[in-house]
Amino acid sequence: MRAEEPVFTPADPGFASRVLASFARQGLMQTLGAHLEDIQPGFCEIRLPFREGVSQQHGFFHAGATAAIADSAGGYAAFSLMGAADSVLSVEYKINLLAPAKGDLLIARARVLRAGQTLSVCRADVFVRRESKETLCATMLQTVMRLRNRADLPAPG
Amino acid sequence: MRAEEPVFTPADPGFASRVLASFARQGLMQTLGAHLEDIQPGFCEIRLPFREGVSQQHGFFHAGATAAIADSAGGYAAFSLMGAADSVLSVEYKINLLAPAKGDLLIARARVLRAGQTLSVCRADVFVRRESKETLCATMLQTVMRLRNRADLPAPG
Amino acid sequence: MRAEEPVFTPADPGFASRVLASFARQGLMQTLGAHLEDIQPGFCEIRLPFREGVSQQHGFFHAGATAAIADSAGGYAAFSLMGAADSVLSVEYKINLLAPAKGDLLIARARVLRAGQTLSVCRADVFVRRESKETLCATMLQTVMRLRNRADLPAPG
Amino acid sequence: MRAEEPVFTPADPGFASRVLASFARQGLMQTLGAHLEDIQPGFCEIRLPFREGVSQQHGFFHAGATAAIADSAGGYAAFSLMGAADSVLSVEYKINLLAPAKGDLLIARARVLRAGQTLSVCRADVFVRRESKETLCATMLQTVMRLRNRADLPAPG
Repeated sequence: MRAEEPVFTPADPGFASRVLASFARQGLMQTLGAHLEDIQPGFCEIRLPFREGVSQQHGFFHAGATAAIADSAGGYAAFSLMGAADSVLSVEYKINLLAPAKGDLLIARARVLRAGQTLSVCRADVFVRRESKETLCATMLQTVMRLRNRADLPAPG
Repeated sequence: MRAEEPVFTPADPGFASRVLASFARQGLMQTLGAHLEDIQPGFCEIRLPFREGVSQQHGFFHAGATAAIADSAGGYAAFSLMGAADSVLSVEYKINLLAPAKGDLLIARARVLRAGQTLSVCRADVFVRRESKETLCATMLQTVMRLRNRADLPAPG
Repeated sequence: MRAEEPVFTPADPGFASRVLASFARQGLMQTLGAHLEDIQPGFCEIRLPFREGVSQQHGFFHAGATAAIADSAGGYAAFSLMGAADSVLSVEYKINLLAPAKGDLLIARARVLRAGQTLSVCRADVFVRRESKETLCATMLQTVMRLRNRADLPAPG
Repeated sequence: MRAEEPVFTPADPGFASRVLASFARQGLMQTLGAHLEDIQPGFCEIRLPFREGVSQQHGFFHAGATAAIADSAGGYAAFSLMGAADSVLSVEYKINLLAPAKGDLLIARARVLRAGQTLSVCRADVFVRRESKETLCATMLQTVMRLRNRADLPAPG
């Protein structure tokens, strides 16, 4: 049933270090304790170990943590295909929470479905790992925007 | 053009303390530094002061932080109308990021659009405050589910 | 709680006839039997009378009909603010079906929340009228894109 | 990267005829000219040939038509797994329009991602066929609800 997954050639051969540098500037990812596990052209994986500081009221991962790493993973999957002078911005996303995110590790895997001149669309699946078994606990559909010739750096004061 | 906002009567007169106790158990809200500012029947406001630990790569509030407080605000707006023995769960949401979340304070205001037996639908608007001026920076549409007779407590190990 | 509704000045004083001409070219709107009731800068209302040909299996309005007029209303609300040489395209939307669309008339009212250079975000509320009473039965959050200098005409074969 | 697709066992062996009978009662599908091409446990395909009556202003398939068949396909994919006495209702969906729906045939293929006691989540991909080539033109993420012991028949007057 599925459309074949598109294969992407990155416009910027240095995409990986560009993504890693941008990720390192996302204070929220550090606050949560997330790390970027893998970056390929059009693909990104971000992982988040469980601790009470990322929980909701029942002791599972908070949907806000789930969505945050899925959103960043999608943004960087798209950013991997952009030019060296571009910047990326999330326009919108929708997430369905499919199962309680109960486990020791959260894994967001995002893939670009469509890479347009201005807009890209990504899908991110989030898995929760418990006793070495991965369960799909959320899926996100996301639109991101390329900002041309606007370096991905902190905005001046 | 607008439908009149529904007026709700809470099923549980002790809704406010029930919501506050649940919020206090959300580790993520404490990690982010968010606090629950207001809870009314069918309405909830959550606030988050800026610090680098909730930022994205340009130094604004990370969309993940924006969505996290909007999601919690919507969940508690709905939870305020549920019974004393009920629990609440986010089913899904969609968020549009309307403007860069650049400022010193983020304010999520959520309101129940429809309170059903099983599902409730909420809208949350998120404002960023900068030099005392509030700007709408995100809007969320969310579905939450009532779990009957399942107290809103941490799941047993 | 609400952000004040933005007031818009149309870039093209002839926006209304431009919208009406475009609407008239939407074969689907004619097939459904929908008509454009009102167009203002940043606002559009589309109406659809009930008949069996727009129903779902329980005899109510089909969600597809509800979404179709909400989508067109949002697109034209945004299009009303664009230039005379622009074209408009729906990028994505999300719709929540709040109540059974049971009645004799469906009314979609869409309003622009944010009018950007490239992207606009609209909200559409859909009401069903039954015995002269309007009930909110769906709400949509939508992103549309401006295509500059690409007249809103049928694409050449 | 993908979660393995779940394999479903239908609760009702007569699911196919139940789905076909329900589809036949959707007046909108007949008005559009759509037909149900395939129904399997947890999967449904609906097709819609192009004609001017389902177009938008540029002469492509209207997003409303795209969404309508995706929504019905998702609903019936979920309905195929429900009991003989159940009824199905769309709660909400989100659709991204990935490419202009320009072609002679639209094909919506929907699959259940999660089949819950009350809620099911489906994904639908919509392809447009042009010169025998299929292009992914839209993708939908949808929540549907099971109504127990409420036969899927027209509501009494």
